[in-house]
Amino acid sequence: MSENKIPYKIYLDESEIPTKWYNVRADMKTKPAPLLNPGTLEPLKAEELYPIFCEELVAQELNNDDAFIEIPDEIQNFYRMYRPSPLIRAYFLEKALDTPAKIYYKFEGNNTSGSHKLNSAIAQAYYAKKQGLKGVTTETGAGQWGTALSMACSYFGLDCKVYMVKVSYEQKPFRREVMRTYGASVTPSPSMETEVGRKILEAHPGTTGSLGCAISEAVEVATKNDGYRYVLGSVLNQVLLHQSIIGLETKTAMDKYGVKPDIIIGCAGGGSNLGGLISPFMGEKLRGEADYRIIAVEPASCPSFTRGKFAYDFCDTGMVCPLAKMYTLGSGFIPSANHAGGLRYHGMSSTLSQLYHDGLMEATSVEQTSVFRAAQQFARVEGILPAPESSHAIRVAIDEALKCKETGEEKTILFGLTGTGYFDMVAYENFNNGTMTDYIPTDEDLKPGFDAIPKFPGNEF
Amino acid sequence: MSENKIPYKIYLDESEIPTKWYNVRADMKTKPAPLLNPGTLEPLKAEELYPIFCEELVAQELNNDDAFIEIPDEIQNFYRMYRPSPLIRAYFLEKALDTPAKIYYKFEGNNTSGSHKLNSAIAQAYYAKKQGLKGVTTETGAGQWGTALSMACSYFGLDCKVYMVKVSYEQKPFRREVMRTYGASVTPSPSMETEVGRKILEAHPGTTGSLGCAISEAVEVATKNDGYRYVLGSVLNQVLLHQSIIGLETKTAMDKYGVKPDIIIGCAGGGSNLGGLISPFMGEKLRGEADYRIIAVEPASCPSFTRGKFAYDFCDTGMVCPLAKMYTLGSGFIPSANHAGGLRYHGMSSTLSQLYHDGLMEATSVEQTSVFRAAQQFARVEGILPAPESSHAIRVAIDEALKCKETGEEKTILFGLTGTGYFDMVAYENFNNGTMTDYIPTDEDLKPGFDAIPKFPGNEF
Repeated sequence: MSENKIPYKIYLDESEIPTKWYNVRADMKTKPAPLLNPGTLEPLKAEELYPIFCEELVAQELNNDDAFIEIPDEIQNFYRMYRPSPLIRAYFLEKALDTPAKIYYKFEGNNTSGSHKLNSAIAQAYYAKKQGLKGVTTETGAGQWGTALSMACSYFGLDCKVYMVKVSYEQKPFRREVMRTYGASVTPSPSMETEVGRKILEAHPGTTGSLGCAISEAVEVATKNDGYRYVLGSVLNQVLLHQSIIGLETKTAMDKYGVKPDIIIGCAGGGSNLGGLISPFMGEKLRGEADYRIIAVEPASCPSFTRGKFAYDFCDTGMVCPLAKMYTLGSGFIPSANHAGGLRYHGMSSTLSQLYHDGLMEATSVEQTSVFRAAQQFARVEGILPAPESSHAIRVAIDEALKCKETGEEKTILFGLTGTGYFDMVAYENFNNGTMTDYIPTDEDLKPGFDAIPKFPGNEF
Repeated sequence: MSENKIPYKIYLDESEIPTKWYNVRADMKTKPAPLLNPGTLEPLKAEELYPIFCEELVAQELNNDDAFIEIPDEIQNFYRMYRPSPLIRAYFLEKALDTPAKIYYKFEGNNTSGSHKLNSAIAQAYYAKKQGLKGVTTETGAGQWGTALSMACSYFGLDCKVYMVKVSYEQKPFRREVMRTYGASVTPSPSMETEVGRKILEAHPGTTGSLGCAISEAVEVATKNDGYRYVLGSVLNQVLLHQSIIGLETKTAMDKYGVKPDIIIGCAGGGSNLGGLISPFMGEKLRGEADYRIIAVEPASCPSFTRGKFAYDFCDTGMVCPLAKMYTLGSGFIPSANHAGGLRYHGMSSTLSQLYHDGLMEATSVEQTSVFRAAQQFARVEGILPAPESSHAIRVAIDEALKCKETGEEKTILFGLTGTGYFDMVAYENFNNGTMTDYIPTDEDLKPGFDAIPKFPGNEF
């Protein structure tokens, strides 16, 4: 046991769980562009958001000034149920790669939701409860967010209505049943329960749904029912704020052992995990206290950062949500059907988009077969079966470690392992059978999405 | 955070992981009865077991004398990948039950195999590798053991051949794919690959298989192929030895905080988890140093302890394995098809059987709908989705805590939470839909099993 000074798994004490979230926007010189009212094209006021989100979450959404926000005791109590999450030194992976690099990963999958999504779900449920609401509505695709939210709502005794993309509802019955076990109602979307659902079903009778449509249904139900609000698992500033717990814990653990990462890697769909993981490191970078190489990894089949436009766009397909300035493929973009995991959102967090635009982080895209090769290699040596989403980060971490092998550099690499792949075995089966294929959209494929981005003065690209 | 002196989750340091397994047989006045050669009815000699098991595991199987056995460094290294496992104070459950009881559970599900099975899988794979073998064979039903073994074999570069009960192979494709991701070959049993498989298929063309048949196939393949041995995930003395890591860690953690359990509860199928959890506590009891109430929980539909016979019986349906003295329902017993989880083995660990026979532990049986009610309640407050097997222990822990509520006693209850239920969502779905039913075999139902127990002098019951 003496070979390693640093343990395999660095568990902080429960008393070391951060008691404040960190708001990276406070340290940004160029703030993320505000949400716009799609009718007036004016920045949205808090009151305009109250019918959709609870008031305290609106305040967090719009708060670009306070660097730290106290985590309420009730949320801290819940965090202690599954946090601190371990920071793991990937000794086995390092050995398998024969690399001088030191690899660390922050593992967020050790809870029943199977991912980091619970960190924000419990916060959003708490504020809904505090405001005296009856329940919340949301959409879910693969089901990680819906599962996390159902757990959080069960804890606070809130009703939870989940609109689940129909194809996932049918193909992922296990996720659906986890949500039901936690007491959530799960409706396949599009449904006949909403106006927007009925409209879509009328226009496209056989449709298997999309995330954008499910968002529109969930928002409609929240705004039309007394005592309900809509909640979202990524993209929003408030979500990145809650997810800062990931990065804060990571930094506390690394500081404790005197370790400083050279490269920080995270997968990026809407940005919730990446934004959370990097936040305290980005803060140091913004304040000129330290420098880090930060890499966002996205699928080649849904390349918002690497091939998207930096523009104001709708957050949903139904175009009922506010306009957000972000790297986007257009709200009408639909990733290829052969796409195995999550990370299929057309847009990206406004905060991360601004940081990327300002050159404070990099982005790269990877193809899914190479992602699953990395996932399999990682699973076999590190003993954790990673989610396809998380495996995008593993791919690039392995690639960077192999570069270190060539150059002989002993770089310290940190990546976010956001979740487990227990509910993604159909994708693994395709990979195991050799039937998984890659897809890179051509410029022609991307054009319809870009054409749908609203054109108005200041929104040129 | 000051309300609780003891943290929610007690994580030991990696340096506190035990470096020796504890062999409870060394402290038993009446040793478990030896395995018998079914032909001669004589106790089996080590050499007779060498064609089936590796030599070092045979030595462990037959060792009734050494109280402690060193855990090899290579196994300790692997343990550090996912151990120590947390000992959790169930504050949320206590609150929900409004009980003065203090409830603790040792959670073994935080690894990709999803259960405690990995503790023995890695040991058995290590000794196979050390003996220079090419690979191992095994059977799996629900798939927890097969998954654990495939992970362990992948780590040591051993070939892993899993015979999976056909009905599970078809109904649990996800478990199968996890095993394949770790490089195991998975064959539905009965198969055309073995003599015994061909015989069974000829006699019962449409059969969906059974654990007993899969054992027979795996043993045949191990004994007929150079460089292969058979491994088993429960029942055997060697498995209980490896699983003692669960109890040793639990005791270390409890001692650290000055906590002493009054009641220790574990689910019991073949006995691997229960035997491991209770071992150091049972040791104290056997040595007269302390007293504990120890409760084995089994399903009412497969009641080996509570309604079985204490007799020599076959470990497999094909009757190719040695005879073991144990509480048994007969090797031909097949639990009802509506049975949702594991814990469907007809027999029980010889060691636990002897301890039960000597009055050193109790046993109780519970019905599955009440088990799933407990599982749901637990999931909603403690945030972990438990395996159906583990939930048997939860059921009785809740019942004991509710008794404390009536009497006002502040008893300390410890139970083993052996694993997670992510791959058991079909059972949860039945429960969520209200279509789950109970089954208690009549005496008439049990008779054919009992009749098949071999009759010879000294084996009367």
